[in-house]
Amino acid sequence: MSILDKTYSGTTIKQLNIKELNILCDEIRDQIFTTVEKNGGHLSPNLGSVELIVALHYVFDIPSDKLIFDVGHQSYAHKILTGRLNEFSSIRKKGGLSGFPDPAESQADAFIAGHAGTSISAGLGFCRSRDFLKDDYYVVNLVGDASFFNGENLEALTSSVDKPNKYLVVLNDNGMSINKNNNGLYKFISKVTIRRGYYRFNAFLSRVFGKSFIGNFLRRIKRAIKRSLSVNTIMDNLGFKYVGRFDGHNLKSLIRILQDIKYSGQPTLLHVNTIKGKGYVQTEKDSSRFHGVSENMSLSKHYFSSAVSEILNRKIEKYPEIIAITAGMKDGVGLTNFATQHPNSFVDVGICEEFAVTLSAGMAKSGSKPIVFMYSTFMQRGYDQLIHDVCLQNLPVVFCIDRAGFVGSDGKTHQGLFDLSYLSHIPNLTVLSPKDVFELENMIEYALNISTPVAIRYPNGKFNPVYEQSKDCDYTKFEVIKSGVSDVLLAVGPRMIDLAMQVQNSTDKDLEIVNARVVKPLDCEYLDLVKDRNIITLEENSRIGGFGSLVVSYYVDKGEKPNVTVLGAKDEFISHASVSEQLEQNGLTVENILKHLK
Amino acid sequence: MSILDKTYSGTTIKQLNIKELNILCDEIRDQIFTTVEKNGGHLSPNLGSVELIVALHYVFDIPSDKLIFDVGHQSYAHKILTGRLNEFSSIRKKGGLSGFPDPAESQADAFIAGHAGTSISAGLGFCRSRDFLKDDYYVVNLVGDASFFNGENLEALTSSVDKPNKYLVVLNDNGMSINKNNNGLYKFISKVTIRRGYYRFNAFLSRVFGKSFIGNFLRRIKRAIKRSLSVNTIMDNLGFKYVGRFDGHNLKSLIRILQDIKYSGQPTLLHVNTIKGKGYVQTEKDSSRFHGVSENMSLSKHYFSSAVSEILNRKIEKYPEIIAITAGMKDGVGLTNFATQHPNSFVDVGICEEFAVTLSAGMAKSGSKPIVFMYSTFMQRGYDQLIHDVCLQNLPVVFCIDRAGFVGSDGKTHQGLFDLSYLSHIPNLTVLSPKDVFELENMIEYALNISTPVAIRYPNGKFNPVYEQSKDCDYTKFEVIKSGVSDVLLAVGPRMIDLAMQVQNSTDKDLEIVNARVVKPLDCEYLDLVKDRNIITLEENSRIGGFGSLVVSYYVDKGEKPNVTVLGAKDEFISHASVSEQLEQNGLTVENILKHLK
Repeated sequence: MSILDKTYSGTTIKQLNIKELNILCDEIRDQIFTTVEKNGGHLSPNLGSVELIVALHYVFDIPSDKLIFDVGHQSYAHKILTGRLNEFSSIRKKGGLSGFPDPAESQADAFIAGHAGTSISAGLGFCRSRDFLKDDYYVVNLVGDASFFNGENLEALTSSVDKPNKYLVVLNDNGMSINKNNNGLYKFISKVTIRRGYYRFNAFLSRVFGKSFIGNFLRRIKRAIKRSLSVNTIMDNLGFKYVGRFDGHNLKSLIRILQDIKYSGQPTLLHVNTIKGKGYVQTEKDSSRFHGVSENMSLSKHYFSSAVSEILNRKIEKYPEIIAITAGMKDGVGLTNFATQHPNSFVDVGICEEFAVTLSAGMAKSGSKPIVFMYSTFMQRGYDQLIHDVCLQNLPVVFCIDRAGFVGSDGKTHQGLFDLSYLSHIPNLTVLSPKDVFELENMIEYALNISTPVAIRYPNGKFNPVYEQSKDCDYTKFEVIKSGVSDVLLAVGPRMIDLAMQVQNSTDKDLEIVNARVVKPLDCEYLDLVKDRNIITLEENSRIGGFGSLVVSYYVDKGEKPNVTVLGAKDEFISHASVSEQLEQNGLTVENILKHLK
Repeated sequence: MSILDKTYSGTTIKQLNIKELNILCDEIRDQIFTTVEKNGGHLSPNLGSVELIVALHYVFDIPSDKLIFDVGHQSYAHKILTGRLNEFSSIRKKGGLSGFPDPAESQADAFIAGHAGTSISAGLGFCRSRDFLKDDYYVVNLVGDASFFNGENLEALTSSVDKPNKYLVVLNDNGMSINKNNNGLYKFISKVTIRRGYYRFNAFLSRVFGKSFIGNFLRRIKRAIKRSLSVNTIMDNLGFKYVGRFDGHNLKSLIRILQDIKYSGQPTLLHVNTIKGKGYVQTEKDSSRFHGVSENMSLSKHYFSSAVSEILNRKIEKYPEIIAITAGMKDGVGLTNFATQHPNSFVDVGICEEFAVTLSAGMAKSGSKPIVFMYSTFMQRGYDQLIHDVCLQNLPVVFCIDRAGFVGSDGKTHQGLFDLSYLSHIPNLTVLSPKDVFELENMIEYALNISTPVAIRYPNGKFNPVYEQSKDCDYTKFEVIKSGVSDVLLAVGPRMIDLAMQVQNSTDKDLEIVNARVVKPLDCEYLDLVKDRNIITLEENSRIGGFGSLVVSYYVDKGEKPNVTVLGAKDEFISHASVSEQLEQNGLTVENILKHLK
């Protein structure tokens, strides 16, 4: 019987000895590897956090004590340890476990964790309620080094809110930030390299927290003094005791320090080093590549993002003042090759979407041609900056919004189903949606020339275009892909156009199929032309405030009595499943569309 | 001829001596005081920054050098010094100067500055373009201490982006943060109290930047060492030289240190102390009260916010687990009295909207009853957190969204004209709009009981209700305020209801006037009832994605052919003017509505 099985048949993790705990870690790691190999998911981050999570479960009483992840793509070991081993093989599949913590899935998941930077805010919220309600539990945040420096965490860290007792922030530092961490505050904190030997509890109290600490250290070399004092002083002022750095794979020392911290009860920041991808040669060596993998271990190749670097490499010949900006997603948005080729024309600000958007506004105001690459779901973080800094000043920033639409197995925290709604009411902004990479390239060219802000949104996935490449690049106009005399299908994006083409293949009616490539401003001329026909709009976006809603409003404003059926995502959060399952759940199927033909 | 007049007739500010510059400051202060006394506007912040702005203009070459404010309510002296003295009396009036910097108004205004925390991101963007395009100018940020610690500034400060030369961030520290700054990082930085005498340039280079600095200081008391080293070390690691703190009202020393910094060219953070409200006994003594004043020096009294504390004082008797949260706007949202009465049930996180929203989610998840008070325009900053942390987990957080609708003289950076659009597509969220303070109180009661997230949005202003207090508190239903057999006017909020009542007074038709107090979910039963009638929707929100758009979509979805006219804000940024002028510009007038009756 494996140790893992034992923990499922009565033995609690707290009854295991160090040797058994280490075996448990190996077994968990095997589970993660074999499952992710099959289902796809986040591999390297989950391999890196196994000992840390085992140690936290050993020392704290979860779920009584609250473990909050930041972000949750490092939570697989936690899921396995909290009664979800049997369902683990279903992870990221429809009806199965989510790839992220989700309180709706298990009460062991204290808080949602799909977007970065939320944990310290949430943790302080938990502590506030706990203390007010006279509850008694520990609140523990497990924060990756990339998330740690997101502005929201920095707000919570530096805020005036008193840091409560029984609150622990674990900085899980693999030094990667998906790629490489070059954050100033990070460099500052990481200069402290005091050995873990110092950190037996008594020593830890007297040497680190006590005044004698300063006295002792003044005898050491000035450089070391300066650095360590700095971190401790700043953390003191932020209301935390700083303890670091520890080997995040040494269970014995991890357990000891966590026990010490728990015993002290003081608000503490524990800084731990882990190796991303720990345990397998290939994942350790190339942890970025294995950060997230697709099913059957294939490395993700995405239709639009895979073309991005090539497109930019061509564009920059013509427009040397192009700067590509991303917020911690260089690989995901397809900028790796461009960044290598043109390092001076590339900026990765880390997971700081707000900064990225206003930075681009400053660049545009002073003569550069910034192009911001961001996932639709993360662009939500830059909503205010898009309004206030970019569009209010009508600045020529290009936004390439990737993962717009259904995202499949990443699920509800990551769906790109709101962008048409949050973009379309912003004045001055043009919103485009390419049907293929050729159109993406032409749209970028167009956007670089119109001197006002443009958002270009496109989905993830593989596509087999069933239509011809466009010749016409007037992006104030829709493109009729197939003309016809009966119903009109206005489709936004390649998946919707393909769906429309499939509908045509399943009916004798002579449909008109339109690439609704400009969502705002609408192609009013075309809409006037077809106002008396039966129209179906297709979009991978909430039905509220999206493309269909714009079309309907346009007609009603003109006093028309339109026959428009708006198909899109339901007004609910859409869980993980395959993209085609998600399309089906939302009525974006041939069968459903056929029902709406007249 | 006054010194100020001189600077308008050929004498540049650089030709003045210190004595004249001091007189100039007095003259500017007089201009500000007399103008704000009449027009209303931000008083204390503008009085506090006069010497600082004069010194910056003396040392730097504006507009060649770029001065970026954060936020711009301290920019009046800058406006006066950049050729806008004659228009200054028109500030905040329709067609006159904006109360904030605006590049559309003058090229001396390098960047928009209505929302906090954007300046360091924008400044780094300017520097990046400048260096790439081989331009040569200085970029200077003037940042208030409240804005300085906003998450977006922290992202930019700590980011991996190299800090460029010829970049100066001036931290204008009046220690107030509108009220009182208790930020941890602030406390940390503000412990450094090195005297300005040290800062002659050579000394400054050798003592602060050079290594001997450390040697010298080690001989001083340990406490002082620890603090000053810490700030310098952290700023070093962030890529800035830290220089502080200076008296922000001593022109001579300010000019000297600015000249030194300019000469050095290094990226520098200059920390300056100013007195908010400087120059007048009353404004210095009570600077918070005079932060922003209304026309003719009346202190603002707002219909809804003035009732907030009283309402909460009553509610907390019944629900002791209520916590009121605000993000730096205690006075503005009306929480001052409540905060005094119930300090343990009140949290002001400073200008950290993201933190505020997720904090509330953490509190709700752990058993408290958080109520977040925020202006509509600033809530844009918490859009992602509202989706991901609150609504995805369906947590019972109440949002009281103030200043929703036209805001009058604060103008385009502050309009609350997007909230219905950015709220209505978020699943699980209920969106309410009270017609008066009685309804606000009842809605808060309702929201505290439905265990899902609720947003209650209400405008600023004074109202003279022309309708009766509601008896019916079923907030799933609209309220018919006046029944009638002809056209139906669906009005959101008190100003729109009053407008509808005025329309009734100007026509013989028997209108039905409805308080559309629940924007989401819509009252479908009522809408079905009136589907064949002529309907006009009235809202203080963008016409795109707002209430009217929801109504239109509802009917079209049902296959109805609605007669709906949607009246609301145009799809553009609406400049400062009086609220009634803004209503008129957007067709929200009796005359225009009469035209749409059938």
